[in-house]
Amino acid sequence: MRRIFITIEYKGTSYKGWQIQHGLSTIQGELTIALEKVCGHKINLVGSGRTDEGVHALAQTAHFDCDCTIPDNKFPYCCNVILPPDIKILSSIQVADNFHARFNAKKKTYLYKMYLSDICHPLRDELYAQAPNNLDVQKMQDACNYLVGKQDFTSFMAAGSTIKTTVREIYSASIIQKEDELYFEICGKGFLRNMVRIIAGTLIDISRGKIFSADLPVIIESKKRKLCGYTAPACGLYLKDVQY
Amino acid sequence: MRRIFITIEYKGTSYKGWQIQHGLSTIQGELTIALEKVCGHKINLVGSGRTDEGVHALAQTAHFDCDCTIPDNKFPYCCNVILPPDIKILSSIQVADNFHARFNAKKKTYLYKMYLSDICHPLRDELYAQAPNNLDVQKMQDACNYLVGKQDFTSFMAAGSTIKTTVREIYSASIIQKEDELYFEICGKGFLRNMVRIIAGTLIDISRGKIFSADLPVIIESKKRKLCGYTAPACGLYLKDVQY
Repeated sequence: MRRIFITIEYKGTSYKGWQIQHGLSTIQGELTIALEKVCGHKINLVGSGRTDEGVHALAQTAHFDCDCTIPDNKFPYCCNVILPPDIKILSSIQVADNFHARFNAKKKTYLYKMYLSDICHPLRDELYAQAPNNLDVQKMQDACNYLVGKQDFTSFMAAGSTIKTTVREIYSASIIQKEDELYFEICGKGFLRNMVRIIAGTLIDISRGKIFSADLPVIIESKKRKLCGYTAPACGLYLKDVQY
Repeated sequence: MRRIFITIEYKGTSYKGWQIQHGLSTIQGELTIALEKVCGHKINLVGSGRTDEGVHALAQTAHFDCDCTIPDNKFPYCCNVILPPDIKILSSIQVADNFHARFNAKKKTYLYKMYLSDICHPLRDELYAQAPNNLDVQKMQDACNYLVGKQDFTSFMAAGSTIKTTVREIYSASIIQKEDELYFEICGKGFLRNMVRIIAGTLIDISRGKIFSADLPVIIESKKRKLCGYTAPACGLYLKDVQY
């Protein structure tokens, strides 16, 4: 047996998220089918974490143990011909038997892509969120500074989540504007359910003047989901990078 | 009656090209359905030209005559709620009754988008062509210079095309590299069937050393399709701009 670590790119539009679910199309499900076919035995694919329905990944990571003769780095070539066009393995390497794709993850970076327009642009459909074109980007950038640090992010968690601790550490958060596109990037040790999408929605509400960025410390303190903005749509969200 | 001029963005992946065809999904067909619904009468939508199956448009143009009460600039708002997510009208204005979207077009610009990689990238699937990552971009740029001018482009025309004249004038052709992406842009008075895709395929063959750019004048002179490169896939091609 050896442990193989893979990075995966996917377009999440057609899938019910990462996690395998009986009778539903999921990323983990499709990958497991392909890997079991090439390995010739059952495998247990462990991802760095789940992504929700419709969320994309530029470089999701995962590990599995296998007992086949495929060279360590050849899993992309063997699996990609079987995998659907919206899921591909980018790379594969052997790792230590005690390496764990989830427990050893040190930092995760998410990217949220928006385009600013009153009109829907078909070529950015499914890959971007649409936002109003009169956003105040400086206000969004100011707000980003309040997010950095180790804080209780209950206010930015999907209602109904049950989890042991709601404290998360954010290392950086920033907004980049390129012509009519806006990229929000956030790096942290981990994230609560829907946290990045709720932050993205809150930043949009801040830039529209519906919420004041200077109120963010109070909103965080309150632990009240309803004080934050809306949950921005899944189509704009990308898991960009997992660091070990 | 007034004549309305519209610009349209579309993702061509799911359509059998621009031109209306009985029983098939086409861009012109979908637009005609939506426009007839909002106008309340039959319309004849005249495009700047056809695009092939799978080809996209950032700004296709078209005109039609109508007799309804919708304000000149409100067709995007009225039609986009009816149109599918991969076709949207970006703008509409009234034009002179003798304006013609095809006959008055002075220049068309096409963009061909490639990414350079040995691995398929799902997030660029359907929107880019994949090309080998060891391309010699300088060779492609050199080749572009041979394309400019008024020439008989029979060599770069899909086999079996029947057309009066095969002479076309190219105003500019260039290659831009951005990280692992390559954009080929070409502007001309008009193009033959599959011409931009055959040029893109030929540029890739030139960059691989299969064809020499200095041979391009001879290849053009020969009027032999078989001396050019392959027809690059439709998914990388965008009608970018039509100038009047």
